[in-house]
Amino acid sequence: MEEGMTAKIGIYGLGTMGAALALNMAEKGIPVAVSNRSDDLIDAFMARAADHAARITRCDDLAGLVAALPRPRFVLAMIPSTAPMDALLDDVIPMLDAGDTVIDAGNADFHDTRRRAARLDGAGLHFVGLGVSGGEAGARHGPSMMFGGTEQSWQGLQPLLEPVAARFHGTPCVARLGPDGAGHFVKTVHNGIEYADMQMIAECYDLLRFGTGRDVAEVAEVFDAWNRGPLASYLMEITAKVLRYGDPFGPGPMVDAIVDAAGQKGTGRWTVIEAVRLGQSASMIEGAVAARAWSAERDLRAAADRAFGGARGALQLRAEDLERAVLAARVLEYAQGFRILGAASEEYDWALDPARIAEIWRAGCIIRAALLDDISDAFRAGAPQGQLLLSPRFRAVLEDGIPALRDVVGKAIASGVAVPALSAALGFWDSLRQARGTANLIQAQRDYFGRHGFDRRDGKDSHHGPWWD
Amino acid sequence: MEEGMTAKIGIYGLGTMGAALALNMAEKGIPVAVSNRSDDLIDAFMARAADHAARITRCDDLAGLVAALPRPRFVLAMIPSTAPMDALLDDVIPMLDAGDTVIDAGNADFHDTRRRAARLDGAGLHFVGLGVSGGEAGARHGPSMMFGGTEQSWQGLQPLLEPVAARFHGTPCVARLGPDGAGHFVKTVHNGIEYADMQMIAECYDLLRFGTGRDVAEVAEVFDAWNRGPLASYLMEITAKVLRYGDPFGPGPMVDAIVDAAGQKGTGRWTVIEAVRLGQSASMIEGAVAARAWSAERDLRAAADRAFGGARGALQLRAEDLERAVLAARVLEYAQGFRILGAASEEYDWALDPARIAEIWRAGCIIRAALLDDISDAFRAGAPQGQLLLSPRFRAVLEDGIPALRDVVGKAIASGVAVPALSAALGFWDSLRQARGTANLIQAQRDYFGRHGFDRRDGKDSHHGPWWD
Repeated sequence: MEEGMTAKIGIYGLGTMGAALALNMAEKGIPVAVSNRSDDLIDAFMARAADHAARITRCDDLAGLVAALPRPRFVLAMIPSTAPMDALLDDVIPMLDAGDTVIDAGNADFHDTRRRAARLDGAGLHFVGLGVSGGEAGARHGPSMMFGGTEQSWQGLQPLLEPVAARFHGTPCVARLGPDGAGHFVKTVHNGIEYADMQMIAECYDLLRFGTGRDVAEVAEVFDAWNRGPLASYLMEITAKVLRYGDPFGPGPMVDAIVDAAGQKGTGRWTVIEAVRLGQSASMIEGAVAARAWSAERDLRAAADRAFGGARGALQLRAEDLERAVLAARVLEYAQGFRILGAASEEYDWALDPARIAEIWRAGCIIRAALLDDISDAFRAGAPQGQLLLSPRFRAVLEDGIPALRDVVGKAIASGVAVPALSAALGFWDSLRQARGTANLIQAQRDYFGRHGFDRRDGKDSHHGPWWD
Repeated sequence: MEEGMTAKIGIYGLGTMGAALALNMAEKGIPVAVSNRSDDLIDAFMARAADHAARITRCDDLAGLVAALPRPRFVLAMIPSTAPMDALLDDVIPMLDAGDTVIDAGNADFHDTRRRAARLDGAGLHFVGLGVSGGEAGARHGPSMMFGGTEQSWQGLQPLLEPVAARFHGTPCVARLGPDGAGHFVKTVHNGIEYADMQMIAECYDLLRFGTGRDVAEVAEVFDAWNRGPLASYLMEITAKVLRYGDPFGPGPMVDAIVDAAGQKGTGRWTVIEAVRLGQSASMIEGAVAARAWSAERDLRAAADRAFGGARGALQLRAEDLERAVLAARVLEYAQGFRILGAASEEYDWALDPARIAEIWRAGCIIRAALLDDISDAFRAGAPQGQLLLSPRFRAVLEDGIPALRDVVGKAIASGVAVPALSAALGFWDSLRQARGTANLIQAQRDYFGRHGFDRRDGKDSHHGPWWD
């Protein structure tokens, strides 16, 4: 390390993501101190980072890392956000001084982040929950980063995070979104939207390949075409790419060699759970989480297929109509996601700015998509009742796309293709777009069997049915 | 109270449900001691219970209630299962002796019940979580009761609970289902199924009344007819009744005077959350929870209606076809519910017996239905892989009903009727009934952007795609 190049931030945890972020920072000219619980990852990192050695301080352990930093210190931990994070805090808190900041850059449950922020606040310290999206490549070359923490920490970290963040037309994709758990919550919903987006693409793949009989290359061609239009997105792009790979061990496409049982970590489930806790519903994300859960039950699926016949009817579907349907469904998916963000913002008093969130999702993260630029514009222009689905900007997309979505889901249902996410989009839309619902019947039932009471349309102060007279 | 009629159980909390249960017990010849935090409810209860005064011991407070009971004591609390229950435990534990039992007969979160059972176990006491279904009328004349607690508590309580439980062809609808939180968890899922059932009925009402143009009396007639067939159930019966009531304040039906914003307490949401936590999905219940949540957003619905037009197409639908569709959907709803019970049983080592659960749901509770007799038979006969949807007993119902369900959901979607629960049934079915899913594409995407890895169908020890080469 060169003379006078004092590290500005310490990175603890040099696994895939931590190493990538540290290299990114060093490359952008930010002096960093690095350490890891075990030596081997430190050695591997130093070897890999030789080109930037002048800006890297190697520290043998956590104490060394803390000692290498000027005050106020910034210690960024990229380790599992579960028990290891609490253990790290036990160790590091006594080493720090008032005004120092610890950053959790992992995928934490925001309830843990809130608890930890309160703990550090009690010790005169700051705790930042930093959502980092974009996988290894993002962390290495420019992630989207969702910052939750104090204004004071942000003042110190903004100059370190902006240079390493992804850029959308020059604007860095990082922002302070709110205090304590705000950043990790936004990252959780980001991942939930990612689940729904992946599931919708999988449903389109099913419809195009096994419904209409296109071959894998033709399906890839459709996704490529969509990626040149309003559905342009990283996930669309990589799906087309993935479908073009052949199996290195056989003659078929790579995708056909993979077991159809999807894994999942916590964030998709967390989104569904938090939505329901907040009195909301992330029904499209729930559809995706359910599809992954059910995919794992291969024995049951095989038995049901034998018993009832998995054969499905052929269907006619123009790729352009499916594109319009998916665009409308994607708008609804974001509308749902932002409603959940709004509900959490109110519950936890975060004052989240939906336009800013959409802006920092436009580059660097897994759900980056052309649509996000329209979404940030829509929020900036002011959506009625704060609702994306009432924004004039999406009126034409919905008016054009919803009939196509009805057609697609209707055909899928008729021919037996599972479309839990696409049909959840319609359930959401048709429930919300009508002034007259049917919950009055539910209220009548509840009053009948449980005397739960109801309100009358005419406002009369009478809250039970005549069945109680 | 007569000489020698020592109370066998103490009931603390004389609100609607507590009073009804205490009266039920006294009427069945069980001597009870009663008390309540405030005097007024004790006085009201004693006045109401005058006919059974010989079997009722009035106690001024909790200490008096405990003192009135022989050992081992049984103190049944019918108070809110949240903080008040913990406060009651603080008070009552020092008054009790080893081997005594406290019963929470409210709608508790089973995690709380598990925590409380551990607490009392540490004090040499027993804690029972007792799910009680059937509303006030059930508690008064015969509820279905789901018991979670020790075998020892069950030995003492069985003779007190069986006489007051609902009966199905003579068999009491109460059983020890497992230890600690088992009873409350089963009650939670019971309520979740109740949510889904009510939502499906509301969707049918929407389809029949506003889709096909039947008037309210005709819809009531359809539900009455269904209630004479395989869909016979308490909820179907009361819905037909409710629809026949006129508004006491005006010329229309009562149901039209009620605001279409549904309330909900915790249990529907809990079912959805626990299902997801257990790696499962209660997608049909989620559809019902979502519909209630969205119903509350009347301003948004009104605005969306103005912007996009709530008008919907007319549809042709025979009531008999809808009946076949709903029967299949109800089988799927129970299949989902019992899968969640099975997952929880495994997670918490409860050894739940699904046949026994179906049996005690056949009378007394809100979801009592003819179908439950078939379900208990199906489980007794042994369902393949423990799955209701593979049971030979339901094969014909599904083979006959699923095409009808496709037709109904397809028509609803085409004409714009919101059917979140019925369409979730199809999403569940079509995901599980096919040996070949699409999760292999999801796995490929996850490996591409996050190096998450996958398994190969041929079992080869190669877990990443060629995109990483």
